Amino acid sequence: MIIDFAERRQTLWVQCIAILLLLISAGCAWAADPLPAWNDGKAKSAIIDFVTKVTTAGSPEFVPVEERIAVFDNDGTLWPENPMPFQMAYAVDQTRKLAASDPAVAANPMVKALLAGDFATLMAAPHHQGLLEIIGLTHSGMTVDEFRQQVDDWMKTAKHPRFDVRYDQLTYQPMQEVLAYFRASGFKTYIVSGGGADFMRVWSERVYGIPPGQVVGSTTRVEYELRDSGPVLVKTMDNLFVDDKAGKPAGIHAFIGQRPIAVFGNSDGDKEMLEYGTIANPRPSLGVIIHHTDGEREYKYDVNPKSSGTLVEALKEAPERGWTVVSMKDDWKTIFAAP
Amino acid sequence: MIIDFAERRQTLWVQCIAILLLLISAGCAWAADPLPAWNDGKAKSAIIDFVTKVTTAGSPEFVPVEERIAVFDNDGTLWPENPMPFQMAYAVDQTRKLAASDPAVAANPMVKALLAGDFATLMAAPHHQGLLEIIGLTHSGMTVDEFRQQVDDWMKTAKHPRFDVRYDQLTYQPMQEVLAYFRASGFKTYIVSGGGADFMRVWSERVYGIPPGQVVGSTTRVEYELRDSGPVLVKTMDNLFVDDKAGKPAGIHAFIGQRPIAVFGNSDGDKEMLEYGTIANPRPSLGVIIHHTDGEREYKYDVNPKSSGTLVEALKEAPERGWTVVSMKDDWKTIFAAP
Repeated sequence: MIIDFAERRQTLWVQCIAILLLLISAGCAWAADPLPAWNDGKAKSAIIDFVTKVTTAGSPEFVPVEERIAVFDNDGTLWPENPMPFQMAYAVDQTRKLAASDPAVAANPMVKALLAGDFATLMAAPHHQGLLEIIGLTHSGMTVDEFRQQVDDWMKTAKHPRFDVRYDQLTYQPMQEVLAYFRASGFKTYIVSGGGADFMRVWSERVYGIPPGQVVGSTTRVEYELRDSGPVLVKTMDNLFVDDKAGKPAGIHAFIGQRPIAVFGNSDGDKEMLEYGTIANPRPSLGVIIHHTDGEREYKYDVNPKSSGTLVEALKEAPERGWTVVSMKDDWKTIFAAP
Repeated sequence: MIIDFAERRQTLWVQCIAILLLLISAGCAWAADPLPAWNDGKAKSAIIDFVTKVTTAGSPEFVPVEERIAVFDNDGTLWPENPMPFQMAYAVDQTRKLAASDPAVAANPMVKALLAGDFATLMAAPHHQGLLEIIGLTHSGMTVDEFRQQVDDWMKTAKHPRFDVRYDQLTYQPMQEVLAYFRASGFKTYIVSGGGADFMRVWSERVYGIPPGQVVGSTTRVEYELRDSGPVLVKTMDNLFVDDKAGKPAGIHAFIGQRPIAVFGNSDGDKEMLEYGTIANPRPSLGVIIHHTDGEREYKYDVNPKSSGTLVEALKEAPERGWTVVSMKDDWKTIFAAP
């Protein structure tokens, strides 16, 4: 015998009992309330009704497990994007670090503008050249392992200016519940974000339970090199793919290759993926917009956000498309997940 | 109560018993022999030893489930690539169809060369322009749904010129066993192929049990359009990413975001991903090369293949790198999986 059968069977029994207990406890939890941080109301009902109908065997609206794809924008949907997207805060901190040790970097006009908080100058350059220069400085030239380490170090130490906690301790509790509820209901949950895939993959599994291969984001090409120390992948700025607006359905197709049936977003950058998931989809579908209506507990914005997150067109389309609009102020009992 | 608890619990019990039975039967099958289509020998042992050690809890070489990533080249590794890669056969058949109904297509010199079997002319154009023209004709301009339908129709009717069966009935039985064995051992199995991702995703789940999101291949950008009929994605030839040679580790990083610990390939196009998976990997790793040594039952080639599949450099590197070289003639009892 190649493999000891008795030992393997014992392991299998233990695994199976563990799975059984998990499933039963999950069942109990749902039976009580799958979304305890949500106030009762239209939004909560829309989500629960959708999951119930697509998972009810025998129902005409049942969707087989392999087609249960749910996609979630990240900034503004799973965690805040104020006072700036967290990856931008990373870029600022890294640029400050680089400028302190390299006079050439410090002398760069775009670096000067960024560190002076002069975003107008930074954004004035045509074709986002100012922003791309900063991203190039902080997101390319190193190996993917070096980049991962830098992001990890930053995430462990940097703090949000208003809430004074680590950035990864600011995920939305109601959305963590949605992620868990969907996964327990047989969905594969994907992040589909304008943020950098390499940036998000450092912490996506730990923070959201979403493995690297289920993170769709903006990318640039990496270059393979076989060094004396072993193979490395060097980050470049070539072939930038921006996973935003019409790029989101394209990114979903490229990385997932299936049409989602549930789409969660919060801004006009999510409009096209909301359309892609919900219009003329032969399967039942759910579109949800998280509306930032709570200036007291989080931020209040839509037409004129301070940084990113403009929500005008998608909000206008919502009634016609049947998208559920979530008011953070009214629909969410708590905002942030406990660390 | 939102969800009926008793009913859910009953469903959970049924699911769990099913899982239990599956696990036990899988356990029994492995105990007997996880790779029955393989002759006993070095190659088979190398594969089983690797899986055993990385899945043995408590062993210093144990690898947690979330890091069990196995990648498989497709053409020449999971099915043949002769007399030409099957996707090329698709392109030829589609071109013939297009030429029959469109004189402008028929007059195209590259189309003429292709349909005359004059591959020398086709390949002589600089920067693969001839080939790209054919791919452009047959792989762009339509929506991804239209393309999927065309590939599906073709796969259901086209037959392999030598074996006279459908192309998707020519997968290698020993490799189907490897895929099943790895998945049953907690691995996520990915295709990483120079072939088009959109082409492979049409049948990857049905043929290999590999869902679309676990297919890494060559891609071009798709364009999102909201038409009256609903949202569509139109295939273009822009931003071609060729998932071959050094592109394979890059593709693995972009799509999977994790380093594989098991890599199966058959040609020099797989050399870089074999290196990436196995050199200086902090985890135990396995590199396998399928060597086409059986002209009688399949094809015999390495230095001078008729179409693709040159195997020179990777074979030279194999002993130094500790890669396992599989001789199809000696190591495989059967070649093709039963339809």
